[in-house]
Amino acid sequence: MTVSEIARLLGGTLHGDGSREIRGVAGLEGAGPHDLTYADSARALEQAAHARAGLILVREGTAIEGQTTLAVAHPKLAFIQSAEALCPPVTYPPEIHPTAVIAPDAELAAGVSIGPNAVVERGAKVGAGTRLSAGVVLGQDVRVGSRCVLHPRVTVYPGAQIGNRVVLHAGVVIGSDGFGYVFAEGRQHKFPQLGKVVIEDDVEIGSNSTVDRGSLGTTIIGEGTKIDNLCQIAHNVKIGRHCVIAAQTGISGSVEIGDRVVMGGQVGIADHVRIEDDVMIGGRGAAFPGKIIRQGSAVWGNPVRPLAEYKRLNAHLSRLPSLAQKVKELSEKIVDL
Amino acid sequence: MTVSEIARLLGGTLHGDGSREIRGVAGLEGAGPHDLTYADSARALEQAAHARAGLILVREGTAIEGQTTLAVAHPKLAFIQSAEALCPPVTYPPEIHPTAVIAPDAELAAGVSIGPNAVVERGAKVGAGTRLSAGVVLGQDVRVGSRCVLHPRVTVYPGAQIGNRVVLHAGVVIGSDGFGYVFAEGRQHKFPQLGKVVIEDDVEIGSNSTVDRGSLGTTIIGEGTKIDNLCQIAHNVKIGRHCVIAAQTGISGSVEIGDRVVMGGQVGIADHVRIEDDVMIGGRGAAFPGKIIRQGSAVWGNPVRPLAEYKRLNAHLSRLPSLAQKVKELSEKIVDL
Amino acid sequence: MTVSEIARLLGGTLHGDGSREIRGVAGLEGAGPHDLTYADSARALEQAAHARAGLILVREGTAIEGQTTLAVAHPKLAFIQSAEALCPPVTYPPEIHPTAVIAPDAELAAGVSIGPNAVVERGAKVGAGTRLSAGVVLGQDVRVGSRCVLHPRVTVYPGAQIGNRVVLHAGVVIGSDGFGYVFAEGRQHKFPQLGKVVIEDDVEIGSNSTVDRGSLGTTIIGEGTKIDNLCQIAHNVKIGRHCVIAAQTGISGSVEIGDRVVMGGQVGIADHVRIEDDVMIGGRGAAFPGKIIRQGSAVWGNPVRPLAEYKRLNAHLSRLPSLAQKVKELSEKIVDL
Repeated sequence: MTVSEIARLLGGTLHGDGSREIRGVAGLEGAGPHDLTYADSARALEQAAHARAGLILVREGTAIEGQTTLAVAHPKLAFIQSAEALCPPVTYPPEIHPTAVIAPDAELAAGVSIGPNAVVERGAKVGAGTRLSAGVVLGQDVRVGSRCVLHPRVTVYPGAQIGNRVVLHAGVVIGSDGFGYVFAEGRQHKFPQLGKVVIEDDVEIGSNSTVDRGSLGTTIIGEGTKIDNLCQIAHNVKIGRHCVIAAQTGISGSVEIGDRVVMGGQVGIADHVRIEDDVMIGGRGAAFPGKIIRQGSAVWGNPVRPLAEYKRLNAHLSRLPSLAQKVKELSEKIVDL
Repeated sequence: MTVSEIARLLGGTLHGDGSREIRGVAGLEGAGPHDLTYADSARALEQAAHARAGLILVREGTAIEGQTTLAVAHPKLAFIQSAEALCPPVTYPPEIHPTAVIAPDAELAAGVSIGPNAVVERGAKVGAGTRLSAGVVLGQDVRVGSRCVLHPRVTVYPGAQIGNRVVLHAGVVIGSDGFGYVFAEGRQHKFPQLGKVVIEDDVEIGSNSTVDRGSLGTTIIGEGTKIDNLCQIAHNVKIGRHCVIAAQTGISGSVEIGDRVVMGGQVGIADHVRIEDDVMIGGRGAAFPGKIIRQGSAVWGNPVRPLAEYKRLNAHLSRLPSLAQKVKELSEKIVDL
Repeated sequence: MTVSEIARLLGGTLHGDGSREIRGVAGLEGAGPHDLTYADSARALEQAAHARAGLILVREGTAIEGQTTLAVAHPKLAFIQSAEALCPPVTYPPEIHPTAVIAPDAELAAGVSIGPNAVVERGAKVGAGTRLSAGVVLGQDVRVGSRCVLHPRVTVYPGAQIGNRVVLHAGVVIGSDGFGYVFAEGRQHKFPQLGKVVIEDDVEIGSNSTVDRGSLGTTIIGEGTKIDNLCQIAHNVKIGRHCVIAAQTGISGSVEIGDRVVMGGQVGIADHVRIEDDVMIGGRGAAFPGKIIRQGSAVWGNPVRPLAEYKRLNAHLSRLPSLAQKVKELSEKIVDL
């Protein structure tokens, strides 16, 4: 694409040479004369003055002397859009590898692509254009929608339901038994794990993460929610729409999470917590059982507190040795008095 | 089964219609006229007044007007027992899928069921009625007992020993090398990882959890112990019987854990810790190297402390800013004096 | 090997019977008359007096009455060296299992060993003597060097580069998409994940750990670095040489780590942190975004602090209730004054 064609696609104000040919996208440092990049911070703009990029996306009202720039409302978002245009996603030929093991009554829609050694068990249905990569296992009666990508070795337990355009990275497990036991008569008795699991449209889940089925109810990951690697989603959890949950986070049983909730890495949410819409939880944050985190709040720490309180507490904590010293001195002064 | 038949199975005191037909189990909210459910808290009893369930298990001495109830000593345990009677577990046909790769000298007992693309290497032995699901890999000389279920893509390293009725969920790894290195001459030298790993009877391990073999000794998971998803059990760890360890917990090398120990999620136990019988460790709890946690104690926090102390400390911590303010005021008053 | 032969191999000062035959290595307690073991602490030396071992490696200047000992500069390192001599590593026959699926244009060097159901996609290259175990998946254009061992079910995404003598344990995922989204127009937009991942020579990565590719740049694991089970290495992370990172640690995007850095288990490093050479981070330590941890420092806690400061703070924290009590008493005394 030429710079002018990209300007037409994205809109915005072009400064510089519209005839340049752009073939790909790159970071600011690595970009060459045929790469598009972006600069959306003061520091990035400084670097951008010396960049070799063919085209730099910048904020509205900005230009960089000597560079070809396109000023747009949201440079990073425009960068994503141009990457989608310039770097088309990997496509998979609509073929079923001869080593795949497909049950005779499984239903595969048009254009399904199945890699080597994948297994599709009885009663499973796979939607149009979906890719099952090498070694994927779909259990009995699983439903997978259209245009999904299941990367190698994803395992889906029987009965799980997966929407459209879902991406599951390598090693993800969907629908394994929840963890519930009753101790009696000297041993652990397993509580029934008979519920469902539903992964809605446009969800993406990172490598080796695990999502348990409901015990009696249903585990739900809402539309457009993104989950990073090595996360654990326990039984009966309900996660809303368009959430972002970073790596190694664990969500315990029966937690309810609203829409557009953001969690940093290694967060731990105990059972029966309720997290309302638009909450932000900082990395390593932890919530006790039954806690309610109110709409729109930003919380940090273990247990989680509002960000301002968390910072103040941390500052006081750092000064604790000097506080103790002060108390000691006061004590001595009082004795003198 | 009729309500009367269930009453005969479980014992207890029946109120209501013994002739009703019960076909399954469900949670209190979702239960319909052919479902059995249970109510064992004050809140559940309130909800139960409006339930549509065919039969409700309640505590001894309880009945609910207008409902058919069976009063038993332990409703949740009785619910588990009735679920076992009403919802028989999945059974696997005793067949070996033609795509499975079984070494000629592997010994498979009667009724073993092996799914597509499973691999059983030289010298391995599998007990009667055990299921190896799609893509399971048993290394050389592995022993697996009878009536186990290894879900898809479980990997068992050479020489590991697994008891009877063990359930390993998808992606579990048993017997990988422990993590031990000596830094010398400018690089890390790997300590020998030549030991064993023994998983005793009735153990269940959650998806994508990992259990390392011993370095020179043996890693042991004791009878009836249950481990959740994404847990890490390091080399030479000894875990006792009937423990329950929740998700994303990590147990470092050479830790010894007694019987009936319960751990919440994301617990971290450093090396050489000793945890005695009947200890409870709250979620996210952490123990320093070499710590001993005494029999029957309930501990929380990082580092772990007795629960009462942990709560008191947390309360004091929350008041730290006001304590600092008070010290400041005292200081000013003393100057005035 | 005889004791004398081992003494010649390791150097050092022999006391006792050089003609004994040694067939293997063992821990101090489990060692029998044909086993070599080591004792490098005061406590181990006490135990060693009663050991049944054929040969005990001890520190220079040490001997144990009634035992055959070899005194060396570094007993544990010498133990590792003798284990390498006495217990040769598992070797894999240079054969390609007939169930493996190898793209016609994949390049396999001499002596490559490929297990059942492994998959090697188009354009991949595998170096001499490397083992791909059962169910391993190498994506398109992957490079794997010589004498590597990829344990069962390792998945390597397209384009990843792996050096020589690398060991990847079961379930490891290399090169999955990084986790980056921009929220706009009511949903999450995925930032391009088009970068590379490079695993240098002599790296070892534990079971079910995950390493993401760069978004636009490159994720690098430096030569000789060892990573334990269930660790997460995010996009664009650079890890130096000869580091040791224990289980369940998570390294966020764009973190830079120097050489010989050591991390305990469950450490969490937020994005854009820089960790200089020779840093030690205690288990469960956590660093905020953008933090710089200076060369050679030993840090603990959340957020990480120098070890001495961390210990002092913990001590003050434990005394917080008594500090509050003291302030209350002072307050009363002042009222009296």
